[in-house]
Amino acid sequence: MRESEIIWNPKLMPGGNYIKIGRDSAKSTYLLFAPPEEEVGVLAKYLNIFKKHHVNLLHIESRPSTKMPDLCEFMVECAPSGNLGGAIEDIKSNSQYLQIISRDYKDNKDTVPWFPRRIRDLDRFANQILSYGAELDSDHPGFTDPVYRERRKYFADIAYNYRHGQKLPHVDYTQEEIDTWSKVFTQLKTLYATHACKEHNHVFPLLEENCGYREDNIPQLEDVSNFLRDCTGFTLRPVAGLLSSRDFLAGLAFRVFHSTQYIRHPSKPFYTPEPDVCHELLGHAPLFADPDFAQFSQEIGLASLGAPDDYIEKLATCFWFTVEFGVCREPDGLKAYGAGLLSSYGELQYCLEDKPEYRAFEPAKTAIQKYPITEYQPIYFVAESFEDAKEKMIKYAATIPRPFGVRYNAYTQSIEVLDSKPQIQRLVSNIGSEMSILIDSLKKL
Amino acid sequence: MRESEIIWNPKLMPGGNYIKIGRDSAKSTYLLFAPPEEEVGVLAKYLNIFKKHHVNLLHIESRPSTKMPDLCEFMVECAPSGNLGGAIEDIKSNSQYLQIISRDYKDNKDTVPWFPRRIRDLDRFANQILSYGAELDSDHPGFTDPVYRERRKYFADIAYNYRHGQKLPHVDYTQEEIDTWSKVFTQLKTLYATHACKEHNHVFPLLEENCGYREDNIPQLEDVSNFLRDCTGFTLRPVAGLLSSRDFLAGLAFRVFHSTQYIRHPSKPFYTPEPDVCHELLGHAPLFADPDFAQFSQEIGLASLGAPDDYIEKLATCFWFTVEFGVCREPDGLKAYGAGLLSSYGELQYCLEDKPEYRAFEPAKTAIQKYPITEYQPIYFVAESFEDAKEKMIKYAATIPRPFGVRYNAYTQSIEVLDSKPQIQRLVSNIGSEMSILIDSLKKL
Amino acid sequence: MRESEIIWNPKLMPGGNYIKIGRDSAKSTYLLFAPPEEEVGVLAKYLNIFKKHHVNLLHIESRPSTKMPDLCEFMVECAPSGNLGGAIEDIKSNSQYLQIISRDYKDNKDTVPWFPRRIRDLDRFANQILSYGAELDSDHPGFTDPVYRERRKYFADIAYNYRHGQKLPHVDYTQEEIDTWSKVFTQLKTLYATHACKEHNHVFPLLEENCGYREDNIPQLEDVSNFLRDCTGFTLRPVAGLLSSRDFLAGLAFRVFHSTQYIRHPSKPFYTPEPDVCHELLGHAPLFADPDFAQFSQEIGLASLGAPDDYIEKLATCFWFTVEFGVCREPDGLKAYGAGLLSSYGELQYCLEDKPEYRAFEPAKTAIQKYPITEYQPIYFVAESFEDAKEKMIKYAATIPRPFGVRYNAYTQSIEVLDSKPQIQRLVSNIGSEMSILIDSLKKL
Amino acid sequence: MRESEIIWNPKLMPGGNYIKIGRDSAKSTYLLFAPPEEEVGVLAKYLNIFKKHHVNLLHIESRPSTKMPDLCEFMVECAPSGNLGGAIEDIKSNSQYLQIISRDYKDNKDTVPWFPRRIRDLDRFANQILSYGAELDSDHPGFTDPVYRERRKYFADIAYNYRHGQKLPHVDYTQEEIDTWSKVFTQLKTLYATHACKEHNHVFPLLEENCGYREDNIPQLEDVSNFLRDCTGFTLRPVAGLLSSRDFLAGLAFRVFHSTQYIRHPSKPFYTPEPDVCHELLGHAPLFADPDFAQFSQEIGLASLGAPDDYIEKLATCFWFTVEFGVCREPDGLKAYGAGLLSSYGELQYCLEDKPEYRAFEPAKTAIQKYPITEYQPIYFVAESFEDAKEKMIKYAATIPRPFGVRYNAYTQSIEVLDSKPQIQRLVSNIGSEMSILIDSLKKL
Repeated sequence: MRESEIIWNPKLMPGGNYIKIGRDSAKSTYLLFAPPEEEVGVLAKYLNIFKKHHVNLLHIESRPSTKMPDLCEFMVECAPSGNLGGAIEDIKSNSQYLQIISRDYKDNKDTVPWFPRRIRDLDRFANQILSYGAELDSDHPGFTDPVYRERRKYFADIAYNYRHGQKLPHVDYTQEEIDTWSKVFTQLKTLYATHACKEHNHVFPLLEENCGYREDNIPQLEDVSNFLRDCTGFTLRPVAGLLSSRDFLAGLAFRVFHSTQYIRHPSKPFYTPEPDVCHELLGHAPLFADPDFAQFSQEIGLASLGAPDDYIEKLATCFWFTVEFGVCREPDGLKAYGAGLLSSYGELQYCLEDKPEYRAFEPAKTAIQKYPITEYQPIYFVAESFEDAKEKMIKYAATIPRPFGVRYNAYTQSIEVLDSKPQIQRLVSNIGSEMSILIDSLKKL
Repeated sequence: MRESEIIWNPKLMPGGNYIKIGRDSAKSTYLLFAPPEEEVGVLAKYLNIFKKHHVNLLHIESRPSTKMPDLCEFMVECAPSGNLGGAIEDIKSNSQYLQIISRDYKDNKDTVPWFPRRIRDLDRFANQILSYGAELDSDHPGFTDPVYRERRKYFADIAYNYRHGQKLPHVDYTQEEIDTWSKVFTQLKTLYATHACKEHNHVFPLLEENCGYREDNIPQLEDVSNFLRDCTGFTLRPVAGLLSSRDFLAGLAFRVFHSTQYIRHPSKPFYTPEPDVCHELLGHAPLFADPDFAQFSQEIGLASLGAPDDYIEKLATCFWFTVEFGVCREPDGLKAYGAGLLSSYGELQYCLEDKPEYRAFEPAKTAIQKYPITEYQPIYFVAESFEDAKEKMIKYAATIPRPFGVRYNAYTQSIEVLDSKPQIQRLVSNIGSEMSILIDSLKKL
Repeated sequence: MRESEIIWNPKLMPGGNYIKIGRDSAKSTYLLFAPPEEEVGVLAKYLNIFKKHHVNLLHIESRPSTKMPDLCEFMVECAPSGNLGGAIEDIKSNSQYLQIISRDYKDNKDTVPWFPRRIRDLDRFANQILSYGAELDSDHPGFTDPVYRERRKYFADIAYNYRHGQKLPHVDYTQEEIDTWSKVFTQLKTLYATHACKEHNHVFPLLEENCGYREDNIPQLEDVSNFLRDCTGFTLRPVAGLLSSRDFLAGLAFRVFHSTQYIRHPSKPFYTPEPDVCHELLGHAPLFADPDFAQFSQEIGLASLGAPDDYIEKLATCFWFTVEFGVCREPDGLKAYGAGLLSSYGELQYCLEDKPEYRAFEPAKTAIQKYPITEYQPIYFVAESFEDAKEKMIKYAATIPRPFGVRYNAYTQSIEVLDSKPQIQRLVSNIGSEMSILIDSLKKL
Repeated sequence: MRESEIIWNPKLMPGGNYIKIGRDSAKSTYLLFAPPEEEVGVLAKYLNIFKKHHVNLLHIESRPSTKMPDLCEFMVECAPSGNLGGAIEDIKSNSQYLQIISRDYKDNKDTVPWFPRRIRDLDRFANQILSYGAELDSDHPGFTDPVYRERRKYFADIAYNYRHGQKLPHVDYTQEEIDTWSKVFTQLKTLYATHACKEHNHVFPLLEENCGYREDNIPQLEDVSNFLRDCTGFTLRPVAGLLSSRDFLAGLAFRVFHSTQYIRHPSKPFYTPEPDVCHELLGHAPLFADPDFAQFSQEIGLASLGAPDDYIEKLATCFWFTVEFGVCREPDGLKAYGAGLLSSYGELQYCLEDKPEYRAFEPAKTAIQKYPITEYQPIYFVAESFEDAKEKMIKYAATIPRPFGVRYNAYTQSIEVLDSKPQIQRLVSNIGSEMSILIDSLKKL
């Protein structure tokens, strides 16, 4: 391993026992339940139950139930307080259905591991960061650089305070930072035409034209995010530190990519032990503009929602071998599409020229492959196409033990948990509508 | 006609010769074209063409082409200047394809009537208002009330300056305004249980719980819009005055409803010659929370995009007889779902009790029915269900002469114009993915 | 009414109290049931139940269950003997499920009106004929002609003895019969180019080239049936007399059309009080070669299976106003597609030229329209296209009260009664496979 | 290899240079073409073209064109005579389209390798047999047994003269033949419960109940074929000798399985160098009763139609490793479903107990695996499920270079070659109809 290369601890740390930091809401429990029928004062009745059991509520809202369209559904966020178990029992016996979603699911049967149901729920991740962005390891190139550490804190704070729906904060990068970008940008561009996949090369000139991708300019996340939204609905969201795999993957289910905004230490422009803005913008962003790749990435995210811990690790491994280090087949040979490759001059050459081992991307097998995180990969997995990879991922997702299907509703930007007949009927009806559009469009072709 | 009733000039004025007000951009022409292949400096080449013909450009952007995924597509907005015809000829001979979208389409073959392609294009409507909200007719109850006229200007200015993505402005209503609301709210609520459709009654208590629907409070558009977004993805958008039918319907294609924010004149609380916040929030908003109704409304909007003028009038008539004055069948008899009925105490009783004529909703027939705009409707059209009405509207839309199919992409919040094989292949692939979700969910049922 | 025209008692007599003739098996009851699990000697156990209750069995077979694929299913045909009710009770308590299908369903809840489940079950109709083909009314032109009556008996016997899978019997028509055909054929052909729908005119020359349609030759049912099978899978089947509406329509569900083979009396070549071979071959056969019309006809048949008696009458009325007397819209005006029109020179002119009343074909309305059977129709229903008529019929069928969906399996030539999750999963899987073919074919277009 | 085992030369000889025997029609060329418009005397015009070029016609028929529904299509079978090339040129310039299908395709661009388009075309295989059933190799156990050879000729003649639509000939087996069957039947039955897949064990008791599967009776092909038709539409068809892989696979596209009817030589009841009635009825038949397996088998057949020679070999190899020697995964371990295993006591034990190599069934890889034909297989391919195997086969089929999609129309029992827009529109419309059935059935669940 040469030091001058980008090799870093994975954004996705499979497994591991992290010490969770964060505020109380991190441990809150979500209850979703439907009163048996619409009656006056029904809300008051339920509030009394929580009161009786001394459970503090952080949030409450009522919506039409999608599971049973004739009912309404309450979503109540309970603080870890009082006799929550008792309240749950009471709610259960007074409801048509009750679903419990909590980060505290391990010893609780009937409890689904917490996942965001609405895109604005991603704001909750800020309290779940595994290590804050300003905390550097002792072997980090910037460990002893107080100015760099201060700068890192600045970026972390921006992200920590960001809320869904706001503009992504504009950052004025220093000349030193721009110089670092410039070195990385210039070096990598010489390889893309021959080593990057066609989707990357297709969109890169458009990023130059529309988003300020230039040797002398670090593009703003806001511009890139807006461009991606136009292409596929993917958006970027600043992240204050390391997310758990479960949280990071859940973002993808919403076509949200958690992105760093800081840049690596100027002392080692061709090395970084962690993702930085070069990695995100040169490696990840161009691919998210491709509709098939976007859907593939989202499928990994959807597969992860409510999945057991061992499957989270498997999906994180699939992410590693595709979105980070994926290689794909093109008519004139293998090309790189993984961001870890597209942002590393050395590994980009190595992976296509130095005869590593190639295997076909098969989620069930790829998911259990061990891999090193501080050196070049000995094995790469090859996708036939993003369309093909997407279909394989959908099939693999169907094997995950989970008592419901999930579907992303892009209108409401929320996850639909499919476990009732009315929902399935609506899905079939939607498909029927799409078929009508297809019939009409075919006629006009 | 009793004066104490809500009867007003329709928001949708079918046909009519309006004097268009607005800034220059109102007459701009949009060109969408794809260079034959990706080459260096291709943008410069096109800019030279416009320069040569002295055409001023208001906006330019490049994106991956959805029509031909291997190409990129330029979208150029040209001011009405120079020799636009000459520039178009030159562009045409240098492009893989060229599409012209313009409000100035009547004498131009090959030109599609302008429609918004992205949700942010709705910002353009502000310049296309047929009459500004502060201009009152001489028989308007507030015509001679300078305070009311000032207030109306305040609301119109709010809307005129609103841009997509911003929060909907919070309004502090005066006590006099709240009193007017209170009278309308109280009177209408006595009828809903017996006269409103089940969808209205299902969601109304949720609006009370979540959005401040109360006798002593005028709900804020922002709260209602956010609630609707959670339910169906519909959102409200303030409007500064009367939109053309073409523009108003186009908003529905994006699940955007253009809403007034002012309230009627306090002198006549049970009458208004135009839509006001009572009409929008009590009549329209509850229905947009219903998934089938939301999709039905959107279908009218999608059908209107790029349609010939006579079909715009037909669709506006369909809108009139459904979203404004629609009646639907329920097990225990007919119920009202049209906002014009649900916000008028008198017509709500009349339409269900006074034996007007009922006909089955059949878009092709409903679309050509004449109707009065200053008195109760003599004829109402009955929907069997919103699902059924939606399917009928989709079928009717397929009969509109238009050289392409359209589809709303909720991820990118943009309209897809379907007229190429790759797009149809993608649509089929999407349907296939939905089928996979269906298969998985069925298994888990 | 002019005597020289073809006006006849309808093949489909709606309602009516017919005296049923036939052998004992006509009253047999079919039991379909699944043993709880596969065990040795399970058949013997059930046979003992029937023995105990003195119920005679006419037929027994076991097949894999489609309703629950892990089980097998017994189909037992019981003669009306012994204590059938007692046997049914015993079977019920020993089975996973039990379905009773019987012609004797009126007073029996839980009993589905008998319908053929396999194409070979159509052989059972021979015993259910309402009036045998040789029995003529006193006002029939051939009533006093012993030679003609003998000939009619000959044709009836052929049909009575016909069994599924056999070749359709070749008939040597007499010169007198051929002369009658010749007169009808020659006269009608002069009108087709201007009065018949395009589907009829498209296939007619092919029937001349392939099936012996000629002035001097009566085509053989076998040749026509084989031709139709190549086109759409429709086949002809000789019928010995008048079928009940329920039975006749059920045949269509299998794409089987029950056809007469005799010809009208030579004394009145342009009149017949009943369908004859001219009506079948000139009126019906050409249309059954059209895929959309074939599917439309089949949908009427499928809708009828197991439907309540009042819906059988409604469907028979739909059949009357479409397959027998339907008119359709073409670019250059209305055209005839109903067989009753296409085989009657007089009514074919009248229906398009003499200003009868036209209404749009709407199954729910058409189904309840009264009509005369011995004179020209005062009202005709107009189909926009067969595709459109088919879709409307499918929607109408969904409104028929029936506790299951039905689907024709063209591989097994049997009806699938859809009322279990595994069947629906298989259907979804089939649709998925068709989607794959679609995706592949689109690629190759 | 122990001699007492069933090891035989494969029914599917991949590749190989066979000397073709047969009558002239074997070399006939099929032309499918559509006249530009329907005109009188158009057939005569084409006949003149063939006459002019001295081409003899064996068969001619006209049908509505499925490719272009407004046209009709001629299918002409030309004997190898005259100046066929010249006639083709003339036809081409006088037609809307022309397709050439011929067994003589190797040097002819634009010529599709011959395949049966209608189920009755399978009758043509009789003339294409690679070696007649009565010709035994010198090491065949019956080579020197004149009685056995005479018997084999009897069976071959039955098959040679069989035509589609006829009943399968009943055979009176001799006591010696029954004794052979009895030994095989008795021995194998002891293993099925533990070694055969669940689909085999599910249907086997039904074959005993319905088709005369007994120790002392060789079932009649007719009975088994009728049973299978009821289950999945599969039918058996007697075959007079060895078919080419191309022909044999083509039969599967129609759900027709070419089956031997003779039995092995009595001297070696547990050995046969070729398929015999024990292999067909004990190995193959039970599986064809399973809907998923039936569709999987058909997919192999459909993939083969018109495929290049190298893909025929690949598909034959897939057939070998699935239908003949396939192993599948069940909850309690691997089970056999291949007929070669289910009809061989020795290999059935070996394949599950003796630790051969197992690989996942992946058509692209399985298709190129070499295999021995005179000893136990060293490698077996494992299917996760027939549903899964089917989907994989469909995907693999899409990779075969072929300028059209194919679909089996079970109504007309014919192959639809999909290469025009109208056909694709009809397919989409069909899917839409299936969706309607799905919606209806879901409602009733």
